[in-house]
Amino acid sequence: VGELQVPERVPPLLTDLYQFTMAYAYWRAGRHDEHAVFDLFFRDNPFGGGFSLFAGVHDCLLFLRSFRFADEDVEFLRSVMPPDTDPAFFQFLRCLDCSGVTLHSVPEGTVVFARVPLMEVAGPLAVVQLLETSLLCLVNYASLVCTNAARFRLAAGPKRKLLEMGLRRAQGPDGGLTASRYTHIGGFDLTSNVQAGFLFGIPVAGTMAHSYVTSFTSLEEVWPQTLSAVNGEHNPVDIISLTKGWLSRVCDLLGAEPGKIHEGELAAFLSYAIAYPQNFLPVIDSYSVGCSGILNFCAVALVLCELGYRPVGVRLDSGDLCKQSLDVHRVFRLCSEQFSIPAFDSLIIVGTNNISEESLAEVNIGVGTHLVTCTKQPSLGCVYKLVEVRGRPRMKVSEDPEKSTVPGRKAVYRLIDPEGHPFLDVVCLAVESPPEAGLPLSCYPLGCNHTALSVTPARVTCLRQEPLCSTAETRAKVQRSLQTLHPRHKRLQKPDSYTVSLSVQAVLNARVQTNLVLH
Amino acid sequence: VGELQVPERVPPLLTDLYQFTMAYAYWRAGRHDEHAVFDLFFRDNPFGGGFSLFAGVHDCLLFLRSFRFADEDVEFLRSVMPPDTDPAFFQFLRCLDCSGVTLHSVPEGTVVFARVPLMEVAGPLAVVQLLETSLLCLVNYASLVCTNAARFRLAAGPKRKLLEMGLRRAQGPDGGLTASRYTHIGGFDLTSNVQAGFLFGIPVAGTMAHSYVTSFTSLEEVWPQTLSAVNGEHNPVDIISLTKGWLSRVCDLLGAEPGKIHEGELAAFLSYAIAYPQNFLPVIDSYSVGCSGILNFCAVALVLCELGYRPVGVRLDSGDLCKQSLDVHRVFRLCSEQFSIPAFDSLIIVGTNNISEESLAEVNIGVGTHLVTCTKQPSLGCVYKLVEVRGRPRMKVSEDPEKSTVPGRKAVYRLIDPEGHPFLDVVCLAVESPPEAGLPLSCYPLGCNHTALSVTPARVTCLRQEPLCSTAETRAKVQRSLQTLHPRHKRLQKPDSYTVSLSVQAVLNARVQTNLVLH
Repeated sequence: VGELQVPERVPPLLTDLYQFTMAYAYWRAGRHDEHAVFDLFFRDNPFGGGFSLFAGVHDCLLFLRSFRFADEDVEFLRSVMPPDTDPAFFQFLRCLDCSGVTLHSVPEGTVVFARVPLMEVAGPLAVVQLLETSLLCLVNYASLVCTNAARFRLAAGPKRKLLEMGLRRAQGPDGGLTASRYTHIGGFDLTSNVQAGFLFGIPVAGTMAHSYVTSFTSLEEVWPQTLSAVNGEHNPVDIISLTKGWLSRVCDLLGAEPGKIHEGELAAFLSYAIAYPQNFLPVIDSYSVGCSGILNFCAVALVLCELGYRPVGVRLDSGDLCKQSLDVHRVFRLCSEQFSIPAFDSLIIVGTNNISEESLAEVNIGVGTHLVTCTKQPSLGCVYKLVEVRGRPRMKVSEDPEKSTVPGRKAVYRLIDPEGHPFLDVVCLAVESPPEAGLPLSCYPLGCNHTALSVTPARVTCLRQEPLCSTAETRAKVQRSLQTLHPRHKRLQKPDSYTVSLSVQAVLNARVQTNLVLH
Repeated sequence: VGELQVPERVPPLLTDLYQFTMAYAYWRAGRHDEHAVFDLFFRDNPFGGGFSLFAGVHDCLLFLRSFRFADEDVEFLRSVMPPDTDPAFFQFLRCLDCSGVTLHSVPEGTVVFARVPLMEVAGPLAVVQLLETSLLCLVNYASLVCTNAARFRLAAGPKRKLLEMGLRRAQGPDGGLTASRYTHIGGFDLTSNVQAGFLFGIPVAGTMAHSYVTSFTSLEEVWPQTLSAVNGEHNPVDIISLTKGWLSRVCDLLGAEPGKIHEGELAAFLSYAIAYPQNFLPVIDSYSVGCSGILNFCAVALVLCELGYRPVGVRLDSGDLCKQSLDVHRVFRLCSEQFSIPAFDSLIIVGTNNISEESLAEVNIGVGTHLVTCTKQPSLGCVYKLVEVRGRPRMKVSEDPEKSTVPGRKAVYRLIDPEGHPFLDVVCLAVESPPEAGLPLSCYPLGCNHTALSVTPARVTCLRQEPLCSTAETRAKVQRSLQTLHPRHKRLQKPDSYTVSLSVQAVLNARVQTNLVLH
């Protein structure tokens, strides 16, 4: 599993101070080794959608494996905790690790729904408390950006190539790496982030920026000025004069004014084509797409075709991408017909200007800011709630009913209908026997705990299994699970809610607890 | 300077692939060593505000200092670039560093405005091109979150304590560290992030979560059950019976029903108070603030006062913080008067539920999600544009006029009015002599390049200076610069625009370039 070779990134101090103040209070009261269980879940699917993808599990495992305080960590804690803190507590910290902790988790990349317990972390009270912030930090953004990527993939359909290029707008270097990694798992094909390719094996892509184009002023800067045909049969040809010839024919075809064509742009395209004759995909809007960029592109691409190369396409990075891409397609078709160059029919158009989910349907690929920052909802509210201590269920009964928790250790089952679509998740007590295929099951949908529902699954899967598999397997699994999800839950706007329910036992248990809590 | 000891975080592969494909095309054309200059700037102040803070400069310096490709980096690049790439290019990469690069930057934490060139990066064309994405990644989020923090500080006023606690909602571990670091520079006092305290010396704070409270069920779990007075004069007292006495008096005073009080919550508060008698600040809404939390708090706090300790206050984490904090204040006042305990007048209330800029005016401190994710605008669009090559000005003339750049090397001056308020930034050509105090200056406000403005500064400062100073100095400077800024530019909603202008020379130069570009 590739990820497990990534250097450990999460120091045990990367957590909130209150985890330590609580750990000390537990330790002081002699409660630190009491067996405790926390549930991790979120309360709403992001982006107004009907589903989420759970991600970050691998990072959580790595974190747990390496969790141990160094001397310098403990010394720092000593310096920030109150001076009357018992020194023996710091000795206790120095010896902690996660050997007594068990993690049950929904596997990386699983389609999940709000309010389902996704992870159960069990172990000594002080230790599992200390893990809270780090685990939340590792799953919250990973799940959010993975879900965002899956929504872009749904909007784009299965065939178009999607490139993530958000590094410069991410929350710093590591935010950018996390984005590249989990958007790939969520359904993106490529990233511009070279380090992400290096660390995670994600295919990388990229061609040129405007600065490359504007750095050229004249054809004299093109060097070498020759290019050999792809089969190498003939001597290198004078590419400048060849290009001038094609440019003039393109201008005639399109009725363009040669005087408005920018020579520096042509020089930039030519230099790039000489360096990458098989990977020609320039950005064509540094000056004017219609008056210069598209003409220069066609001239150079036609030269490449004449020499047996296959130009790839163009990138558009400003203005109305939808309208421009139609114009550009029209030019490609004209050239293809007029010059009998069928390669021009398969040229691609890449749009990269401020692409959002809504605009994606109109252009081709390349998403930055809206993808990595998750503009529509920049955070996922995963929480970590205590559900059991010393074998006794615990719950929080909040003034805000939505914030109340489901007490006790639980198992989660996904019920599948005869067509293979999952239709209901049921949260049972861990001690209950699992629902069985073909047998009716009574349960209470969350949010309306007083009306029982009877359902008969065609098949039942247990949601929390061994979470380890490779990035490639996870990425494939994401698409497979999204395919089984019924389209009504996948609609990007106003989807039908997927039902998450509690078993009868879980509801009874929660009622008993609520009464205990409220007396 | 503390930051310079932080381990290098930005590997040179953490950039977009197109930087390498462009570098290769430059190298192939023999242009890689041409002297080039890039400007870094953004086009709009974030959050609809009238100003921004520029941050991330230290990280950029660290990045430049350590910029060098290892063998494994170069081997990875070889594996992703086209197979016909000249092998000598990889040898060239292996020897690159930033020794030929100069950075002129607005100092860390400076108040800045849209469209002012904030950094000028000059050096060999291929090298300065390679730096683009990493520099943008380092300044974009740092500046955004620093600006966001400054806005929270403006909304809260200078006196209230502001705690950043967004780690769990940040873009992964390093996103969280960056947030803690730059919100502190922007005006926050404290962070919950222990690693940020460890690495950057930011004061850390935190007390307890709901899970701590809900982990207790009865007073039997309190241990030890005694506490000594702060002066140690008397024997440890039986804190349980002392608390029960105070709780009964508090219930009488407030007309509360003792039957509704949650014993587990009282046990949790007592255990915490025994561990931290000088730092008692519990979260009081795990069950019900009015029926349980506030009563338990008052009882334990009164015990602490009786023993000579000084309780700190309470934390509210759900519901209507504004209304609840008024109710809680009323209870504190009643206790203070009734029991003659003046310490109750200075108890603080900390609000931590989903605090945004707008809600901040009503409660006390503690901001997470909205701060670190910059919900109102989750990215800053800093860009990096080529402005000169081989001593010749370059510009991009876009279809979108807002995307056109100002060509040539420039200096930026800030003009100060007689009251000490900065009132206008002027971008001049680097070769021009600077504006002088008391002398009228003609310039063109950006966005209306055809109407000249004549202004006479009382004082002139040069905006781009040596950028190194410590975090503490930077943090203080932020508040000083914000103080000099006129209130009309500091309004959080609909501020008056600050004028950014071009010198006459810069405009003439841009016109010449535009004509050259457009023929």
